[in-house]
Amino acid sequence: MRFELTKEYLDALQLAIAKQDVAWMKEHVFELHYADIGAMMDELEHEEAAYVYGLLDEETQGDLLMELDEDLREYVINTFSSKEIADQITQMDSDDAADLINELPEEKIEEIISHIDDDEAAEDLVDLLNYDPDTAGGLMQKEFIQARIDWPVNRCVVELRRQAEDVEKIFTIYVVDDTNKLLGFLSLKRLLFASPTTKIADLYQDKNVISVKTSDDSEDVAKIMEKYDLVSIPVVDLQNKLVGRITIDDVVDVIMDEADKDFQLASGISENIESSDSVWRISRARMPWLLIGMLGGIFGAQVISGFEGGISKVPALAFFIPLITAMGGNVGVQSSAIVVQSLARGTDQFGSILKKIGKESLVGVVNGLVLSIIIYGIAHFFDSSTLGLVVSISLFTVILFAAVFGTLIPLLLNKYKIDPALATGPFITTLNDVLGLFIYLTIGILMYGV
Amino acid sequence: MRFELTKEYLDALQLAIAKQDVAWMKEHVFELHYADIGAMMDELEHEEAAYVYGLLDEETQGDLLMELDEDLREYVINTFSSKEIADQITQMDSDDAADLINELPEEKIEEIISHIDDDEAAEDLVDLLNYDPDTAGGLMQKEFIQARIDWPVNRCVVELRRQAEDVEKIFTIYVVDDTNKLLGFLSLKRLLFASPTTKIADLYQDKNVISVKTSDDSEDVAKIMEKYDLVSIPVVDLQNKLVGRITIDDVVDVIMDEADKDFQLASGISENIESSDSVWRISRARMPWLLIGMLGGIFGAQVISGFEGGISKVPALAFFIPLITAMGGNVGVQSSAIVVQSLARGTDQFGSILKKIGKESLVGVVNGLVLSIIIYGIAHFFDSSTLGLVVSISLFTVILFAAVFGTLIPLLLNKYKIDPALATGPFITTLNDVLGLFIYLTIGILMYGV
Repeated sequence: MRFELTKEYLDALQLAIAKQDVAWMKEHVFELHYADIGAMMDELEHEEAAYVYGLLDEETQGDLLMELDEDLREYVINTFSSKEIADQITQMDSDDAADLINELPEEKIEEIISHIDDDEAAEDLVDLLNYDPDTAGGLMQKEFIQARIDWPVNRCVVELRRQAEDVEKIFTIYVVDDTNKLLGFLSLKRLLFASPTTKIADLYQDKNVISVKTSDDSEDVAKIMEKYDLVSIPVVDLQNKLVGRITIDDVVDVIMDEADKDFQLASGISENIESSDSVWRISRARMPWLLIGMLGGIFGAQVISGFEGGISKVPALAFFIPLITAMGGNVGVQSSAIVVQSLARGTDQFGSILKKIGKESLVGVVNGLVLSIIIYGIAHFFDSSTLGLVVSISLFTVILFAAVFGTLIPLLLNKYKIDPALATGPFITTLNDVLGLFIYLTIGILMYGV
Repeated sequence: MRFELTKEYLDALQLAIAKQDVAWMKEHVFELHYADIGAMMDELEHEEAAYVYGLLDEETQGDLLMELDEDLREYVINTFSSKEIADQITQMDSDDAADLINELPEEKIEEIISHIDDDEAAEDLVDLLNYDPDTAGGLMQKEFIQARIDWPVNRCVVELRRQAEDVEKIFTIYVVDDTNKLLGFLSLKRLLFASPTTKIADLYQDKNVISVKTSDDSEDVAKIMEKYDLVSIPVVDLQNKLVGRITIDDVVDVIMDEADKDFQLASGISENIESSDSVWRISRARMPWLLIGMLGGIFGAQVISGFEGGISKVPALAFFIPLITAMGGNVGVQSSAIVVQSLARGTDQFGSILKKIGKESLVGVVNGLVLSIIIYGIAHFFDSSTLGLVVSISLFTVILFAAVFGTLIPLLLNKYKIDPALATGPFITTLNDVLGLFIYLTIGILMYGV
């Protein structure tokens, strides 16, 4: 049965919290999956959530902590002593533990680590804290299973039993030599079905061993795991020594965060924000793009003011200003979106820039022709057949330019190592606005002869 | 070692293909991971790729087929007889095999299935073809491992060995009763370390057993697996009988496709397209939004023509038309992007609509105030302090309206079960354009007194 969070449940829970009704919570909360408890806590007031959290067992507390919203997590952590936090994070996977304490001030980190009884766990944690969170080292965990190539299967099972105590999900056994260098892997299935005296050397796979280095970018790790359909990947240091592993669930989070970031960038939001963030933070994240948009508008005003004489004689020219700017923006965003996506995927990497632009221009010609013909039929009713011609010729030109720029700009940004997703937002819209205005008004002035 | 596809490699490969140099390919192609072979084939001409494909062994052919671009796959399949295809898809996981033959015409499907020797495999395939590809049934595979609750561990290991022949990655053993109803699960790790006579009943986990139904939407499956950090999930029918499992690699594809679709919708592209698609297909996918944008532009022209008299007297009013429409569009897209994302994530589901709009309005007030003050300082240079006031007051009003509409429209669409991602594109931009123009010109006419 999957748990469904309802308004009724929340009301009952809040009542139980107010009455400190632990019996109710034992029946309705404690047995739930930690992910469900986490989702429910995010809907409570901080004090209520911290109260429920305090009632849970250490294992659930450990699992739960990384599920909570950042503010709530900070609040909850502050209600516990360093010793208590140390006990809770000992229950967590090392990568989650490292992510968690990384958020804390330095002296607090030292205090917590000094309270971890298991020396090996403390060492692993200190090691993980050294890595940049956006690299394979920052994603990896120290819980993995390794086997020496010279072991027989029965020795391996004994050793695994010892190692496996800390490892929740095994997936794959990594095979190493006596200096800990990664040689290959062995599925648990093969181990399970092998005879006890077979040597690992005769059982393991050394073909297509895919690993990442600690310094590899986390987005690249995600791409590799997705490409090769991996559920876990070994992480090695510069000497190819096995130092950790990354599991797919952490990579799914990277993929989703990346998709969120791209979507927000394309929508003109410069920091990764959530709807629960403060008004001030949301406002700030949006400001850069709005300023760029405004700058574009000011340039646009400059362009139009250069044609003031013409507009005062033919005010009808002003009618289609929004149409021209909107269409330039829309086409530019469409073209750049396709480029940004194929860049992000690494597909189509050998096609030449000229060929891409050629194709986009063709798309521009097709759409431009269709739309120009339609708008000619409509625009001439607003003033005269001259206006129809002006709007229709400019629209075609603007669509063509917008398609070319929309393709070219993300490709250029990418060449200079700037995130091309930046191009798919107000930036390209703004550029095409200004350009479109100039084209439209120039053609207008020329054709009206004013 | 990870394989890196380079221009040099491709040139050498194409030369080897032209010379039919199988020895070169044996050394440089056959040993690669199928995902790398797939990526390389997508860069070749169809005939070249089909030639290389024909040289591979059946297992690699099976793994490779679903990695290829749709056009190439179709081409390759047509170079083989139904019998040969049957042999290749027998090497594939049942879900991939079903996806593959689902693309073919009905009589071809029947022909291929009649050539599958393994009756059970043929039956599984026919069963899988019944499900909608966008549901759990369409994602699931028939390869999974199940154990009866009344078995002891040693019997289980024997049975598993038999079952495991077809199952590449095990992950979890599903525990069922004698009518095949799903009761819980057992990790391979626990089985590996248990004593041979222990009963499965004493070993398995029945708490928090998370499963999906065959009819569940694939996006919901992805959300559930992501939420509960699962690498595989059992699929049950209406009677809770175990019928399949879904593995995380397939779900990663669903997540990425979904992210692509949202990104494209937000960029005004209505079908899921790739840069390699035909000019005609790309043009068609973009047309709907361009038509909506154009309709918006025509309404905009209507609005402005209503103010023609005012503009001919004060042509300076036309200067800031692009600024007003651009800012309304930008703010609207920003606001709706946040709502669309939090709807997609299912977060913040109990906050009231009014509260959300209140918060967005506050963000609008903050950004509106800052930008209005800046634009006042700039706009009055273009004509007079009246223009400064007109632009600054309208900008503030437009930003506020755009923030409210940007929040409200996706929430309303969602309420009426329309994909709210539709709102984050030209749709909201267009609406805000028309509204912004009306506000701006009305304020302008009133303040200039024309």
